[in-house]
Amino acid sequence: MQNEILDKIMKPKSIAVIGASTKPKTIGSEIMQRLRDYKFNGKIYPVNPKGGIIEGFQAYTNIGEVPGEVDLAVIVVNAKFVLDTIDQCHAKGIKGICIITAGFKETGKEGAEMEKKLLEKVREYGMRCVGPNCLGVLNTNPEVKMDATFAESLPVRGDIGFVSQSGALGGGILNILKDLNIGFAQFVSIGNQADINAETMLEYWENDDDVKQILLYMESIQNPANFRKLASRITKKKPILALKSGRSAAGASAASSHTGSLAGADKAAAALLKQSGVIREFSLKNLFANAKAFSNCPIPQGNRVAIITNSGGPGIMATDAICESGMQMAKITDETKEKLRSFLPSAASVKNPIDMIASAPIEHYIQTLETVIADDNVDMIMVIYLPFLGLKDIDVAQALIDIKAKNPQKPIVGVFMTTSDFFGKIANMEVNMPFYMYAEEAAEALLRLDQQRQWMEKPVGKAPCYDVDRAKAASIIKQSIDEGRAQLTTRESIDVLDAYGIRVCKSGFATNIDEVVTVGNSIGYPVVMKMTSKTTSHKTDVGGVRVNIQSEEQLRAEYNDLIEKLKEKGLLEGLEGVIIQEMVKGNREMVCGIATDPQYGPMMMFGLGGVFVEVMKDVTFRIAPLTDVDAEEMIKSVKAYKLLEGARGTKPAQMEQIQETLLRLSQLVTDFKFIDELDINPLLISEKTGEGIAVDGRIKVRLEEAKQKLADCCSCSCCG
Amino acid sequence: MQNEILDKIMKPKSIAVIGASTKPKTIGSEIMQRLRDYKFNGKIYPVNPKGGIIEGFQAYTNIGEVPGEVDLAVIVVNAKFVLDTIDQCHAKGIKGICIITAGFKETGKEGAEMEKKLLEKVREYGMRCVGPNCLGVLNTNPEVKMDATFAESLPVRGDIGFVSQSGALGGGILNILKDLNIGFAQFVSIGNQADINAETMLEYWENDDDVKQILLYMESIQNPANFRKLASRITKKKPILALKSGRSAAGASAASSHTGSLAGADKAAAALLKQSGVIREFSLKNLFANAKAFSNCPIPQGNRVAIITNSGGPGIMATDAICESGMQMAKITDETKEKLRSFLPSAASVKNPIDMIASAPIEHYIQTLETVIADDNVDMIMVIYLPFLGLKDIDVAQALIDIKAKNPQKPIVGVFMTTSDFFGKIANMEVNMPFYMYAEEAAEALLRLDQQRQWMEKPVGKAPCYDVDRAKAASIIKQSIDEGRAQLTTRESIDVLDAYGIRVCKSGFATNIDEVVTVGNSIGYPVVMKMTSKTTSHKTDVGGVRVNIQSEEQLRAEYNDLIEKLKEKGLLEGLEGVIIQEMVKGNREMVCGIATDPQYGPMMMFGLGGVFVEVMKDVTFRIAPLTDVDAEEMIKSVKAYKLLEGARGTKPAQMEQIQETLLRLSQLVTDFKFIDELDINPLLISEKTGEGIAVDGRIKVRLEEAKQKLADCCSCSCCG
Repeated sequence: MQNEILDKIMKPKSIAVIGASTKPKTIGSEIMQRLRDYKFNGKIYPVNPKGGIIEGFQAYTNIGEVPGEVDLAVIVVNAKFVLDTIDQCHAKGIKGICIITAGFKETGKEGAEMEKKLLEKVREYGMRCVGPNCLGVLNTNPEVKMDATFAESLPVRGDIGFVSQSGALGGGILNILKDLNIGFAQFVSIGNQADINAETMLEYWENDDDVKQILLYMESIQNPANFRKLASRITKKKPILALKSGRSAAGASAASSHTGSLAGADKAAAALLKQSGVIREFSLKNLFANAKAFSNCPIPQGNRVAIITNSGGPGIMATDAICESGMQMAKITDETKEKLRSFLPSAASVKNPIDMIASAPIEHYIQTLETVIADDNVDMIMVIYLPFLGLKDIDVAQALIDIKAKNPQKPIVGVFMTTSDFFGKIANMEVNMPFYMYAEEAAEALLRLDQQRQWMEKPVGKAPCYDVDRAKAASIIKQSIDEGRAQLTTRESIDVLDAYGIRVCKSGFATNIDEVVTVGNSIGYPVVMKMTSKTTSHKTDVGGVRVNIQSEEQLRAEYNDLIEKLKEKGLLEGLEGVIIQEMVKGNREMVCGIATDPQYGPMMMFGLGGVFVEVMKDVTFRIAPLTDVDAEEMIKSVKAYKLLEGARGTKPAQMEQIQETLLRLSQLVTDFKFIDELDINPLLISEKTGEGIAVDGRIKVRLEEAKQKLADCCSCSCCG
Repeated sequence: MQNEILDKIMKPKSIAVIGASTKPKTIGSEIMQRLRDYKFNGKIYPVNPKGGIIEGFQAYTNIGEVPGEVDLAVIVVNAKFVLDTIDQCHAKGIKGICIITAGFKETGKEGAEMEKKLLEKVREYGMRCVGPNCLGVLNTNPEVKMDATFAESLPVRGDIGFVSQSGALGGGILNILKDLNIGFAQFVSIGNQADINAETMLEYWENDDDVKQILLYMESIQNPANFRKLASRITKKKPILALKSGRSAAGASAASSHTGSLAGADKAAAALLKQSGVIREFSLKNLFANAKAFSNCPIPQGNRVAIITNSGGPGIMATDAICESGMQMAKITDETKEKLRSFLPSAASVKNPIDMIASAPIEHYIQTLETVIADDNVDMIMVIYLPFLGLKDIDVAQALIDIKAKNPQKPIVGVFMTTSDFFGKIANMEVNMPFYMYAEEAAEALLRLDQQRQWMEKPVGKAPCYDVDRAKAASIIKQSIDEGRAQLTTRESIDVLDAYGIRVCKSGFATNIDEVVTVGNSIGYPVVMKMTSKTTSHKTDVGGVRVNIQSEEQLRAEYNDLIEKLKEKGLLEGLEGVIIQEMVKGNREMVCGIATDPQYGPMMMFGLGGVFVEVMKDVTFRIAPLTDVDAEEMIKSVKAYKLLEGARGTKPAQMEQIQETLLRLSQLVTDFKFIDELDINPLLISEKTGEGIAVDGRIKVRLEEAKQKLADCCSCSCCG
């Protein structure tokens, strides 16, 4: 049903252009020209109060007068007329709307108000709507042939579905794609995305065979959870490449003033895209260059690359680029080497990179490429050409294209360090492989293909549900809230973690010297003693942590000393008591926790802990809830993973137990969405058992939200 | 004198092409064509045994017959005739030689032998020689007009001096430069660099006003020390941009088989280039793109960038790129904002990035740019253009060029997201500012300008000479060598460091329980006890380090226990004794040391120490000898610098003392060049004083070299 209405927008049989104009260089004129010039495969009804003939089509004075059925109304009238126009479209029974007109949310409060009303009407009338404040829509399918934009150039047919958030940029993109001869299937400029957004298009294109890869230019992600759900499913079938701008703080601030949408922090966006299997690009240049690879290459079977070149220098540069990207230089088999030696001159190198030397004729390109394709140790091939006397670049390219046609199974990319003339020629040919000017571009394209392979091979993760004591956690948190404390005490924090089955170190609470001794003796020495206070959150600053207490006597002495110190500083008031903990020995301190991004929600962190957290920043982020695959990846993606593996003769950490810790934390924050911050620092790796043990914990909630939620709360949990 | 001979090669008044040919598509024919087509401003003498007319010039059967004086002989005869040809050139009195012919060192042992003989002749005859195995030489100066290459395209006049090591790549480079309309002054393909290498050309171009920037493509650096000396001086006057390939191990291996030269490890190359003020590029694409900026921009006064755009999206992307590069987004003054508001529409944003909105006419570009140039808070400007109805890209570009002509003082770069047609047109125009297609390219270009500014502003460093006890260090090392030990014991190592005035922790040596106690008592508790052994180098593996010994009793117990353990493991034999050290308290462990690169010589390391060295790899390298500026930079460039500054309430480290430690180490390794490895790990930062204290040390020498050197040794040191 939804797709039926979207079909009316993307595959209409009739289009009304409301606000069509005969005045040159106006949007109302340009759109009519595009529709005409690209030869739209349906009916075109210009609508203009003056009527007449516009770009050769009979114009109607209002939409109601249009004789036939209208699938799509493209609206370019002044913003103040848009709402009425929507009513008229409804009266005419139109369901597909594309509003080019600007002057809505992007202009401020008044515009936002108008956009809100617009959306209400769209919803009420059962319409779907692109825009407002956009460039329009495009579909190159021969059965549709719709260019309802006001971009400078007509599109090239291809397999890309493109969503652009920025309107003006969309025009630039269409120009450049045309120039690079990168074709696409459909293009949507979503503008202010009042209704239709990137997620709508993802879902729409999921099973559309016309769209073989999806490209996104985004300044914000509207519904991160929904985006993740959709994208992580779709990327298993077809690649999604996204350029998400507003990465820097300044850029994000520019983004929010530009689109009127709050751009999320980039760490969260980065995590979300990664978890969704979306390939992230950082410049339009790379977005286009890599899309070219996906249009012309199969997904490889592995990451072993062979390089064929007629010049040593570029061969070395290509090797550098391949190795630095983390791919492998293919180990050419002896059989292949022997074959290569049979026809290449003795000065040639038959090791990878295969250097045929400068004088290589076209036959050597053909024979070498065919030989290397047949090598089972080779997954992908980069063929480099540098001009040499008597050899024509375009002939070499044609020879490669012919071989590729016969051998479609492996990605082959060309690096032709020649003039732009060549790329002009190539742009007008039927090509079946991508050509680049520089080895680094080609290496990146191969890397992207390989990233997609890895993602597709990766198992779909699951977010497990552990049997936890949710009620206990809730009651601990409730107590803190009831006392008006957003920040739980250390004891409460640790108890919440414990309720969720997270391994915390053995401990007990004591409020006087006798209790202290009892608890200490029951845990067994050595122990650590930590003060817990409602007024002092940074314990170390007041000497509130005493470690390596070896005996009952020492414990007594340390406790008395602490009380003394607090008295001196006038901090005795807030003291709740002390926590006596088992002293876990280990010198590997990790950190894990939760931070909340205002747009993306709770975000999990894991990495190297202790004093190094802020200095080394060896931490990684993922959006909650985590799957088991996410958790495993998090652990493996930090440099400190080597410490966990047992560098320098230490005991390897229990990876599965640490993974479970992350997953339980994820469950905790999913159950209690009002947890704003949570830190386990350190998560100490026990030298004895290799377990990750939460030695210290800090939980902070959003007070108002927590009050509300805990009041509503039934005993629901992630499991049922 | 040397420059006079180089002038004969680069600015000849007469050229003989020995091996000139009438046969099409041969190098001997192509070079003649280039010389003719580019209209060489001097005499051209083809030499060919058959005589006749070649490309319109009278040919001579041998060089001796040439009637006039010959400045430069370009040799393209078969490799086996090259040596004789050199003799003939000598007989003719020719001093400038360029050998295009391949078949020398790059082909193996025999070729290398021939190249050696070639070089001997060149030296003997007082010649200078480009090549062999190269593409030739070029000079676009109107008084010279020499294209003595066999590249496809004729050059464009410009201000770049270009040295390319790879011949075939050189041809590709010339093609692309032509295509991008990047002009150069002189180009030398050095090939096997038997005589003339990159360093020769650096020195030659140092005071040549025709060459305003130097570009290098290198696979190896021939004499790193000389390169550093020259480059660090020249880069203070004009930028040097280098693409050094063979970065990856595989790439380096490809490089060594390709050029027959040993490519140094990339860490050393990276350090050397940094210390020389050379701007390193990692792809030809970037090399060219950034050279374009240096050709058309002044060096900026600071790093504050203003962005002017007619589209929000690219403005955000540009902001991201500027911020991620570490440059600053300029804070536009209120005065400027007011001016901008006076003519820009209300929907425009006058904050940086300045968004004039899509409909901005050319007048807004002009007014906005002029206003922003005048803002004292702005050092550099990026102007972005996206196609919009009615605006012509080339007109906007021309308007910017006109403004730039009147305001040459600040760098201005254009980002024109339009078609390649535009860049074709621009390539044929007189431009005074660089234009790019994408914001990221423009941001990188600005970054390079800013890097050059920073380097030029940075004081020239000095390698200080400290008053050290060189004789004592020598005698300690000598003892180890005399005993055949390349690896000094811990005690010896520490003593050598001490002799060079490096702060080591107080310690003494003991070989029996009584001595142990005496030393311990004299230092004062707590102490650390470390075994020292001639057979066991990794002390921790055998429990040979005991820390935090609080009293005489504990010291006795620990010593007895150690002896027991060694007995069990059968390691008592090698035990020399134990070192008793003051126990320095501190939890900040740094590392510093020396590693030797086979090509670049001793290389200093500094960074985060302890167990983190290998895991975090937070270390930096510089080639010795260090200057004070180098040492300061090393300390500041690691992430752990924040720890030294005093993160989390720790005492700030004594930066100058740590800097001095590095400089004294540098002096040590400069005095004793045969030191192969030296490690101070940890260099513990004392919590009490903030000093960096060498707690453990390890020195290893190259035994044979050390024997030789110490035998030769006078009392020379860096000071006199």
